[in-house]
Amino acid sequence: MTARRLTGAPVAQRLRAEAEDNVTTLRERGVVPGLAVVVATDNEATLWYVRSIARAADKAGVHCRVVDLGAGAGADQIASTLTLLSADEDIHGIILQTPLPPGVAVDELVAHISAAKDVDGANPLSLGRLTVGQRAFAPATARAVVEILEHYEVPLAGRHVSVVGRSAVVGKPLLQLLLQRDATVTVCHSRSRPLERYTSEAEVVVAAVGRPGLLTGDHVQEGAVVIDVGTNVLDNGDLVGDVEPASTAEVASALTPVPGGVGTVTTALLVLHTTQAALQAGEELASAQPSGSGASA
Amino acid sequence: MTARRLTGAPVAQRLRAEAEDNVTTLRERGVVPGLAVVVATDNEATLWYVRSIARAADKAGVHCRVVDLGAGAGADQIASTLTLLSADEDIHGIILQTPLPPGVAVDELVAHISAAKDVDGANPLSLGRLTVGQRAFAPATARAVVEILEHYEVPLAGRHVSVVGRSAVVGKPLLQLLLQRDATVTVCHSRSRPLERYTSEAEVVVAAVGRPGLLTGDHVQEGAVVIDVGTNVLDNGDLVGDVEPASTAEVASALTPVPGGVGTVTTALLVLHTTQAALQAGEELASAQPSGSGASA
Repeated sequence: MTARRLTGAPVAQRLRAEAEDNVTTLRERGVVPGLAVVVATDNEATLWYVRSIARAADKAGVHCRVVDLGAGAGADQIASTLTLLSADEDIHGIILQTPLPPGVAVDELVAHISAAKDVDGANPLSLGRLTVGQRAFAPATARAVVEILEHYEVPLAGRHVSVVGRSAVVGKPLLQLLLQRDATVTVCHSRSRPLERYTSEAEVVVAAVGRPGLLTGDHVQEGAVVIDVGTNVLDNGDLVGDVEPASTAEVASALTPVPGGVGTVTTALLVLHTTQAALQAGEELASAQPSGSGASA
Repeated sequence: MTARRLTGAPVAQRLRAEAEDNVTTLRERGVVPGLAVVVATDNEATLWYVRSIARAADKAGVHCRVVDLGAGAGADQIASTLTLLSADEDIHGIILQTPLPPGVAVDELVAHISAAKDVDGANPLSLGRLTVGQRAFAPATARAVVEILEHYEVPLAGRHVSVVGRSAVVGKPLLQLLLQRDATVTVCHSRSRPLERYTSEAEVVVAAVGRPGLLTGDHVQEGAVVIDVGTNVLDNGDLVGDVEPASTAEVASALTPVPGGVGTVTTALLVLHTTQAALQAGEELASAQPSGSGASA
């Protein structure tokens, strides 16, 4: 068997079209959706990634403001920036980009992103709301996995999905999205040994650890669908996932490529979430005011 | 094999001793820990349960205030009660007891319990913090399962635990507590069929659905440890769990009884959490004030 390549491009294209529809609706109401990306690093790969988000946003008609605090920024400065942006009416989505300066803990800071603008689902309140089924943005990478599975019509209800990786940005929120869709989910990690005990009977396997070669053809059953969330930069500059593509493609029925898979969809989701946040902000403003009154606040 | 009975009593006894130590420390500081239980029902079984919490609290030296709003209470009234209690300096722990009056959704109300006083981990913020590993109270029932496993020295790291039930009060927070302890966890539910596919290879199986006879000896492997979270009242008034004890005890190596298992530990944890919340409130007050100043605020 040679696995089908589940590329992210057609999924991202559909999400971009949805974002553009939202932007049209917003412009009719006189609103330009705004996304703020807070950066505090001089890491070139990170800055390149942030520029790619800004380009994707601009292309969809979403204004992107990159707030570069520099590699010497302190926790207080980052926290107050997030608080100001949370109150800024021109900004509808906020992303705090990692890595942060040494000694600055991202966990403590994300609580300063208002849940309504938390388009990358970083605030623990967003994760808690997602868990109990209330309205919240899921981390874009976790949602990208589900968008790909749904686009390619991979059934989830009643199926067994094995998620390798228990991070708060991918594994744990992805688990919630999969349970919402009635999958039975196993969460594996570095202490799950042998790993194939937990992956080899699943219909869908998601690798989200950040280690090249973590998953091979020996870990999955014939016909499994494999989603590769890993983005590892090798010494030679190559970008590879967590899955060994050659051996896995011989056993699996479908596999996402890296690059060109999950990452492509993630960026489109950040833009889409920002337009959704702007629409929701408008609805809340409208419902908070007596009918017939203007939208100026 | 006849399974060992993992009774809750010795676990609860140890937790009560810890709570009493905390109360001694608090009294030396002039603080009486206070627990508020908000009730809006005339359901006799519920009122009996609330009285049992109040008795357990009083016995440990924790003042318990039952706020009975009656079966006709509205959502606004419950919300404002929770907000007032969150600001009340004499109250360190708050529980909103279900069931609530018809049409009143518990999900919307628990956000009014301050996270610092959320001793039953009901606020989505508590659940989110638990998920990312920040300080938060876990729902007492979920933590009771882990307390029993640890008391009876059942290893969790590197083991496979199958949790049947995906509720926000048991299954989902329990998953977080188990992942923290390096277990590999499978979350099953009503759409997991056949159920034994997901339970029969696990070293530990937790049943938390609320359906008598859900789990039998056919669902678990020889030597498994089985924890029964179910509390189902039959028509004849008997209390039974989700596990069929006779067939399961023939296969499992250990099993919690119902009654006398998880439920016993849950009540002790609500009291312990209240004393911990009172200690934390004191520490925060002390660190917020210049050293040497009094504790009056």
